[in-house]
This record gives sequence, structure tokens and C-alpha cells, in this order.
Amino acid sequence: MPRFRLTVEYDGTPYVGWQRQDNGASVQGALERAVAGFAGETVTIRGAGRTDAGVHARGQVAHLDLSKDWPADTVRDATNAHLKLAGERVAVVAAEAVCESFDARFSATRRHYLYRIVNRRAPVVLERDRAWQIARPLDVDAMHRAAQSLVGKHDFTTFRSVQCQANSPVRTLDRLSVTRVGEAVEIEAAARSFLHNQIRSFVGTLVEVGTGRWSADDVEAALAARERSACGPVAPPAGLYFMRVEYGEDRPEDAPQPGPLAASNGDESAFV
Amino acid sequence: MPRFRLTVEYDGTPYVGWQRQDNGASVQGALERAVAGFAGETVTIRGAGRTDAGVHARGQVAHLDLSKDWPADTVRDATNAHLKLAGERVAVVAAEAVCESFDARFSATRRHYLYRIVNRRAPVVLERDRAWQIARPLDVDAMHRAAQSLVGKHDFTTFRSVQCQANSPVRTLDRLSVTRVGEAVEIEAAARSFLHNQIRSFVGTLVEVGTGRWSADDVEAALAARERSACGPVAPPAGLYFMRVEYGEDRPEDAPQPGPLAASNGDESAFV
Repeated sequence: MPRFRLTVEYDGTPYVGWQRQDNGASVQGALERAVAGFAGETVTIRGAGRTDAGVHARGQVAHLDLSKDWPADTVRDATNAHLKLAGERVAVVAAEAVCESFDARFSATRRHYLYRIVNRRAPVVLERDRAWQIARPLDVDAMHRAAQSLVGKHDFTTFRSVQCQANSPVRTLDRLSVTRVGEAVEIEAAARSFLHNQIRSFVGTLVEVGTGRWSADDVEAALAARERSACGPVAPPAGLYFMRVEYGEDRPEDAPQPGPLAASNGDESAFV
Repeated sequence: MPRFRLTVEYDGTPYVGWQRQDNGASVQGALERAVAGFAGETVTIRGAGRTDAGVHARGQVAHLDLSKDWPADTVRDATNAHLKLAGERVAVVAAEAVCESFDARFSATRRHYLYRIVNRRAPVVLERDRAWQIARPLDVDAMHRAAQSLVGKHDFTTFRSVQCQANSPVRTLDRLSVTRVGEAVEIEAAARSFLHNQIRSFVGTLVEVGTGRWSADDVEAALAARERSACGPVAPPAGLYFMRVEYGEDRPEDAPQPGPLAASNGDESAFV
């Protein structure tokens, strides 16, 4: 069956999250209904990462199989037409035909997230549901320095939700940078995969550093404690964006395939 | 009476525009109610520019007089508290005490606007109501070149709404630049003042150039025609942002005061 790779943008505000669930509208469900609407067949769409309720995406990646060899542009445009008709806040930014070995989740070699804070006294208006507003001035340099102790291979038990389903709390964090962009503070995170709530736990903790309540040493100690209770507050979902996914050297057909263990323990997922 | 200068951000989507009107909720009305809510007195707030329904602001400037000498931070925070309580999509980004000669509208020496286009096939989702989506690829260099013939002092009859109330169609356009920022196209405009619908008329016309339907010569001919019917389509309001206002050398107390003529003909306004 022809396989397609989709790059998906969504406003996470009205959804229970990426994944289909019993308790409300999901992004995955919206996409599956839209594809069924034009292709006339039931499909299952698999995403690179399971984002939580309220979390946005600019570049979620997903794959699906269709029985007909549609032109990729038709898949993109027809899915968008059905999404729009249904009033969904989801859009397919790009679609391309890929070989059957491509798996949006298991072929991924690096995931990139952005967290956006608006650091000012006034409430956010134009970025409502799109950023975390923090009134107290943040020391961005102190936040960035403290973040560097989290980069590398660590047991991140402190920074994952107690509901996290990954077998291992060990992950390798490739990047965690904090920069000021005007009145905004942007936190960029990259890793092969993330634990549930890992980035929001990082951000909430780093904000404690930014306001001066925590030192960089406190962050290191929290990491070393390997205890969820050592974590700072968890940042709200509205500031988080799933930005993009890397696949090998951007040649998805070369990416390694999951063994049965990887498929069963879910450790390559990115439920943030 | 103590006078205050406010810098105001708003999401223009739910409003009939900046100015108080009989037919719906206005930004001015929302601010006046919020100030009355904390100050306990009826106020009139005057803005630097009268934006249309659906047009946003990052840095609208307004002034008001209060009978009590409140700390400026209290004016900002208390107004924001009342705006939030009322569910308004308006926020006071900054407030400062100014001398009585400061007038948000008549002291302004330059107004800056930004128009944002998202140039891609997929509908906008995260920027819904915040940008104009155009599917056809735009030639940004051609747009920028064509825009330069509009810069300078001209009779802009072609590019103003037939409802424009300004006595004279002559304005001096200081800047009209078109740049690509990723998948977005940003058009920046600056002038002492603008005519009604002037920027949206520029943008709609320049998009005709970007898609290849118009040449730069066509834009020059449209300007020279001095006829509204020679204008291209008017761009939708959602992409337009009132960004900031300059007051002299940013010393508002030095700005020239309006004579009676200026006050009556409204030619220093910016009803875009």
C-alpha cells in the first residue's frame, strides 16, 4: 500500500492531545476523519510524538497508508479541505510519498520543541493560548546556564510525569537553550526522544532559576535526586510547540527499523 | 488633571474597530469601561489611530486624563485587571504620566504598521485571524520593487477608501518594504499619517504584483490615475498590525500642538 508522510500544524487548545482518546476530540482523530472523507477508506494515522492537551505543533510528522496511489499534493489539499469543512484547527503543511519502511515514530532520530514565554506585566492578548505569561523579570542568562547541567545522558526521573509509560527514565538531551527575543523568552529543546512532561518540567524548573528562587546548583541537585518531588512546577501546555522531526540524514528510507523490544516499550515516543 | 499615555495591544477580531460606535464593541469603549471601573470616573480615551474592525495592535498609543494622580503602574495594572475581568482582548502594555500638552493623535510624528501574509498552500491554523493566507507563491522581490514607486509624497486617491474623511488625499509615505521571513511575507509601512484603508489597499495591490498579474508599471499607473477604481483588491483586516507610534524625538512633551484646522480636518489621523 502506498505510504504517505504528513507534516502537520495544529492549535492544541481545543484538543485532548494528539492521540485518539475516549474523553474528547483529538488531533489524530480529526486527521483520520478528514482522510477518510476524501479517500473513502478507514485509516490509522501514526504520529512522531504524542503531544498533550493544549500543546501545539508546527511540524508534527505522521504517516498513513492508503490503498490508492494518490498524488501527494492531492492528499495534502483534500485532507485540508475536509479539515476546514469540519472546523478543525489542524492543517497538513506538506505531504509526500515515502517507502513502506518509513515510520513517523520509530524512524525519528531527533525531535525539536520550542517553549514560548511572554515576560511582561501585561496579560497576553495576541498570543492568548499560545504562550505562558510571566510578570516577574526573568534572568535569561541564569536560566540558560542552569539548563546546561541537564544536557547529556541522564536519568530524568525528576523531570517526568508519574504517568510516564516509558520503561527507562534515561534519555540523552542534545540541546536545551534559553534566549530572549524581545519581550519573549524562548526555550529550545532537542533529543532523540522525550519523557512525558519532560520539557514542561524543565521549563517550570528553569523559571524558578529565572526569578531567582532557585540556583543552578538547585537544578543539578534536583536532577541528581531522581525523584519526581524534586522537580519545580510544571509549565502550562499552551507555550509548548512541537517544531520538527529529523529522520536520519533526512533520508527516512535509511532510518533504522524498530526491533520488537523498541516497539513494545515505547521508549522512542515523545509524549511531552 | 494628570494625563497618562497608554501603549495598548489588542486582538481586533471581536471588535468593530478602535473607535466607539453604535453598532458593536470597540477597543476604545473596552478601555474606557476598564478605567472607569478602577478610577471611579467617566473618561474619554483618545488613540493615535482609528483601526478598522479585525485590525490588531501591538503598540497603539492613547491618552486620558484622570482627576487623581495615580501611579502609572497602577493605571496599567488596574486597567488590565478590569479588562481581564470583562473578558476583553485588550491589554495595556505600558502606562506613563505625561504632560498635558501630549496628545496621542496630534503629537504623533510617525506611525508604523506591519502586514503579515502566510504564503503557503495549507490554511493557517496557529495564525488564524492573525494573517492573510495566500496559496500562490509570491515574488517578494518584485513586490518590494513595485512598492518603492509609492514611497514619497503623492496624491493617494487610488489607495484610500471612498469613505475616507481626510480633506486631502496627499500623504508622504516614508517606508513600504516587503520581505520574506520563512513562509511569511511581511510588509512594513511608515508615515506621519495614513488614509483610510491605505495600507490594505497597498497590500492587496502588491499581491497582484507578487502573483505576476500586475507589473511594477501597473502600480505606478494606478497611483498616477488618482482614481479609487484603479486600485487592486483591498487586503483583509486580519493581517494588519498597528505596531508603534513615534512622538518627535520620542520626547512627547516637545511635540507640536494641533492648530484648530488640524483638529477639524482630521488629517493627522490614521484610519487604516
